[in-house]
Order: sequence, then C-alpha cells, then structure tokens
Amino acid sequence: MSAIPLSSYARRLGLAVPIIQAPMAGSQAGALAAAVMGAGALGSLPAALLAPAALREETLAVRAAARGPLNLNFFAHRPPAPDPAREAAWRAALRPYYEEFGLDVAAIPEGPGRRPFDDEACGLVEALRPEVVSFHFGLPDRALLERVRRTGAQVWSTATTVAEARALAAQGVDAVIAQGAEAGGHRGMFLDEDPATQVGTMALVPQVVAAVDVPVIAAGGIADARGVAAALALGAAAVQVGTAFLLCPEATTSAVHRAALKSDAGQVTALTNLFSGRPARGIVNRVMRELGPMSALAPAFPLASGAIAPLRAAAEKQGRGDFSPLWAGQNVSGCREAPAAQIVAELVRGVWPQA
Amino acid sequence: MSAIPLSSYARRLGLAVPIIQAPMAGSQAGALAAAVMGAGALGSLPAALLAPAALREETLAVRAAARGPLNLNFFAHRPPAPDPAREAAWRAALRPYYEEFGLDVAAIPEGPGRRPFDDEACGLVEALRPEVVSFHFGLPDRALLERVRRTGAQVWSTATTVAEARALAAQGVDAVIAQGAEAGGHRGMFLDEDPATQVGTMALVPQVVAAVDVPVIAAGGIADARGVAAALALGAAAVQVGTAFLLCPEATTSAVHRAALKSDAGQVTALTNLFSGRPARGIVNRVMRELGPMSALAPAFPLASGAIAPLRAAAEKQGRGDFSPLWAGQNVSGCREAPAAQIVAELVRGVWPQA
Repeated sequence: MSAIPLSSYARRLGLAVPIIQAPMAGSQAGALAAAVMGAGALGSLPAALLAPAALREETLAVRAAARGPLNLNFFAHRPPAPDPAREAAWRAALRPYYEEFGLDVAAIPEGPGRRPFDDEACGLVEALRPEVVSFHFGLPDRALLERVRRTGAQVWSTATTVAEARALAAQGVDAVIAQGAEAGGHRGMFLDEDPATQVGTMALVPQVVAAVDVPVIAAGGIADARGVAAALALGAAAVQVGTAFLLCPEATTSAVHRAALKSDAGQVTALTNLFSGRPARGIVNRVMRELGPMSALAPAFPLASGAIAPLRAAAEKQGRGDFSPLWAGQNVSGCREAPAAQIVAELVRGVWPQA
Repeated sequence: MSAIPLSSYARRLGLAVPIIQAPMAGSQAGALAAAVMGAGALGSLPAALLAPAALREETLAVRAAARGPLNLNFFAHRPPAPDPAREAAWRAALRPYYEEFGLDVAAIPEGPGRRPFDDEACGLVEALRPEVVSFHFGLPDRALLERVRRTGAQVWSTATTVAEARALAAQGVDAVIAQGAEAGGHRGMFLDEDPATQVGTMALVPQVVAAVDVPVIAAGGIADARGVAAALALGAAAVQVGTAFLLCPEATTSAVHRAALKSDAGQVTALTNLFSGRPARGIVNRVMRELGPMSALAPAFPLASGAIAPLRAAAEKQGRGDFSPLWAGQNVSGCREAPAAQIVAELVRGVWPQA
C-alpha cells in the first residue's frame, strides 16, 4: 500500500491531504474546521445560517486554533419575491401537524430567509481574507465576485451538471466542485431545477474533468479511503467530504440528527424541498414520507423553512426528528463518533490501490 | 502508466480484462457479445425480448464466433395480475397521442408481456451451458435457481441497495452486480419500489463490498478507463459497462436511439416507468416530459409497454424518438461509432493511476 497522491492543486493550496471538509450549515462551526485543518485538510465555515458578527467570531476562533487554508462558504441564490398564495397553501398543508402539536398557526412568523452573499458579507471576506471562498447556487453578481477575487482568495462554486461546470468555468472560478447526486444537503444546482436529472458522482466527475480546464473537486458519496482513491482516479484534484464528519464531537449536529445517522433509517435518504424550498438530500423522515419528499406546495428557497420550523422545534422537544432536515449523503458508513482529525487520517490511509 | 489489475474473480471467470458487457435487451444480440468476448471481456445476451428459439440461435452464433465466458441474462419478475381499470386509465392518458397519430385505440392489442425466467428458459440454460446466468429484478424461484446452479453456471443478480445485496448473498449468488443510479435501462430493484431512494455508484459499491462476502461487479456511469479504475478502487472485482457500447456497429440500437445518443439531448436522462411499468433510465424525450418521467398511471411491469408501442412505432416511422425508450446511463461520453473490441481496449488502457 502506498501513500495517497497529492495533486498539484492540493499542494498549491497548502494542503497535506487532498481533502476538503464540506461546509455544513446547521451542523458545524469553527471547531470542526479547525480540527480538520489540524489534520492537514481544508476546513470550511458555512455562512448561510450565521449572522455576520458570528461568522467573524468563528473565523477568528479558527485562525487562533489552527493554521492552514480556510474556506468561507456562502449561498449565492437570488431571493424570491414573496408569494402569499403559495405560503398560504403551504401552511394549509402543514395545518394537520400544527393541530397535532397544538401550535397556533397565526402565531407562526414568516421565514427568516437565509441571506445571499451581499455587500456586508463581501466586506467580511475582504477583512478576514480566507484562502478560499466557495459559493453554492451559482455565483454572486460580477461586482461582488470581482471584490472577492481582489482579496486573492481562490473562488470555487458547485456544479451538478456538465453545463453548470462550463458556466462556472466561463465566469472564471478557480476550481469547480462537482457535486454528485449522492451528496448530502442542498444541491448546488443553478441552471437546472429538476432533481430527476441530477447526475451521480461516478458519471459527473469524469465528464466535468473533461469539460473544464480548472481543477475539479469531487463530492458526493465519498466516505472512506476507497472513495477518495476512486474520486482521484476519476480525475479529481481533491475530494470534498461532509457526511463522514457529522458524528464528530467537533460538529454541532443535533441529537435527533445524530440518532438518525446511527439508525438503520440513516441508510435511506432522498432529495427533498420541504425544509427550505430547494432540493437537498436528507434521511427520509415522517414529513418527507407524508408530504414529499418533493412537493410543489413548498415555497421558493429559502421561504419554505419558516412555516416548518415550529414543527421541527416541537418534535425535537419530544426527541423526534420527524420534521427536521436530517441532511446526509448516500454513504453514512464513514460516520463515526471520533475526532475529525481521525476521520481525515482514515480517509487517506494507505488504500491507494496497487496496480 | 501501468496495466489494469485483474481481480482473482475475473481470472477465475477466464477474462483477460475485468469488463462485463451489460445485457441490453432491444439494443443487442449475439454480435455485440461475440465482439467483446473477442477482446477478452465477458459478453452478455439479454433474453428478455427474445423467444426461446431466437435465444438458442443467438447463443449458438456467439459460440461459433467467439471463445470465452458468456452470460445469459433473464428477468426474474413476478408477472402482475391484469388490472383493466388501470389499463383503461393509461390508454386514456395516451389518447391525445393516438389522435395525433391517427391511431385506432380499439385496435391496439394488450401488451405482449415479457416473460420471466421459467421452465422453458431454464431448459435452455441446461442445454446451452452459459458460464454465467444473470438475473434482473431479483432471483427466480428456488427450484429453478437450483437447476441453474447444477449446470455449473455462475449465478449473478443485481442489487440497487445494500439491503438487496444482502438478500441476494443470503440466497447464494456467486456475485452481486451493484447497479448505481447512474446506470441506463431498467433498475434491478426488487425489495424497494421507490426510485427517489436509489443510490449512486460511488456510494453503493463500497457499501455493498463491505456488506457481502461475494465478488461485486460495479455498474452505473462507468464509460471510460478512469471510471473502470475508480470502480476497482471502490473494491469491485469487475465492471459492467452498457451505454458505451450502444453506438457500436455490432449493437442493434435503433436509428432514433443512436441519433439521441449523439445529440445534446443525450446528456439528460431520467428514471421513467412509462415504457414498461418499471423505473428505467433513458434519455428524456417528449412523452417523458409530458407524462412523467414517473407516472402513477403506467400499468405494472411489463404491461405498460403494450399501449405505448403503437405510438413508438408511428413516431419512429417519422424519424422521431418521442415515444421510444432511449435507454442510456448518465455518462454517454464513452459512446463512439467504433467496434466493440476497440471500446473494450480503451476501457482498460493504461490509466490506472500512479501513486
């Protein structure tokens, strides 16, 4: 058994191993990023659910705890126009659950709406100087993107199809994350809206590698050293791993989420739009079985989250994840209650196959 | 660059390369099998659409043309009870198309119904002695399976989930084909009915390898030497490739199917049940866009095919594949109008990555 190869791009990033810790909003902050950075991998901080002050604080904490490159990850969606009729239909669909939990539907606020990358976030990037800035759901407007570029950060975004990879390369990204359909959490799709045509990692990565001239980072279903070796064989310069870190003590994964990952139910995931309005892969739970997993009633991203949030909170109080987004990819076999540094070490441990 | 490794199972089968040509009913007969066998791969003959006499004839033709191991592939579904109400609803959904093509709906016969593996097919196996007998949609009844085993054939079947792989191993298969969601044609699913939870190759193969003690054959999205190397890195003993052979002169792929594979449209596939009643991956065409791709109206497998067949024939007469099953996996980049032996050689050509 020989050592895992380090691509020139991974070397250029200053990595000791070709592993990117996937940003996982809601399941991690700085502690996970710092832990993987300590093991030579690239740490990521997801900004989607953090206020700017919290993002700054987490970034500074990571910098104090670990050396090496850090990725700040932002959503680059276009906020939708509110649609009262659709919101009302969505709440009507959820009404039986409100009644079951004794919740007052009139008291449920509008969804908070995750903010896309904007002037304030860009100012943070300019101040914090992360080595990598990655985007999900496309790229921000040209002016903001130029400001990010001028910080010297590597700019990445996610492609779920060859067409999306080409579009990102045409806009000058430094690397494309090829997100296979196996990946947990939100699909990065921005040209396509149809989850039925999303492409698996084995098919997507080599086609993206052939289509673009920039390094390709493989994501989706990669949970152990075999998967890392396979992704590199497909031509990836590095591998992005998320799910395998969800049970780490450094992650902030909720109790119901951890329990689901450890259960037999954790083996079965599907793409669902019920929790945010965009397709995302999570462990199949009650609301996904009963209303979806995909539903035309869910308001546009990120508005669907508002009305379902009180159900999530009420169910979680009872120890149940029936209304929680239990994000996970299609390979939870790498999840272990072990320090993130150990997960990183095992991902690159001597399974590079011999010819 | 070094030679591609040959697993002990591939050696035991007598293969020169660890490649299985996927059985593709409707797109090939003996000529394709013989051509890949000539290149050291395993050839497959799909029985699903062949009468027993034709299957015998094709097998004898392959034996006359090529040496090496041959796989006869059978469907092992349980035929459904006819459901006149569902059939009527299906025909009602298709009625606008019948009118468009000037077809007389009353004159359309019931579907012919593909036969599952039965006594007569088993008798053929006993007479023809293929080295491998592979099944799709589970396994036949115990008595038939025992008869197959007694011929000395290796018995394979397809798993689309870890649970299906375990079930097959418990029934004593000699190898499991792990069919990732990227694969073209019919999903082999037999425990699960939900296409939303089908698993991508990158996630499925290592989990199946870990779950069963028999060799695992990886299928789905593998179209070039990078993909073969990746599948072997995941622990597969061999790789099953179908889509990459569809444009070969030895295949019987129809003109509309070939045109679709060569077009930009060929990049976009989805799982659909419109053509047979079971989920199968094909290039998205008009009827998939307008009625599906998945529809609750389609009668149970294989009955859906009857009512749509006249539309397929009428559209194909006009050179259109709007109602044809254009089976393809999610990676058509390996399709070339080249002899099958050349495709086989390229699949194993010197890309085994260096550490």
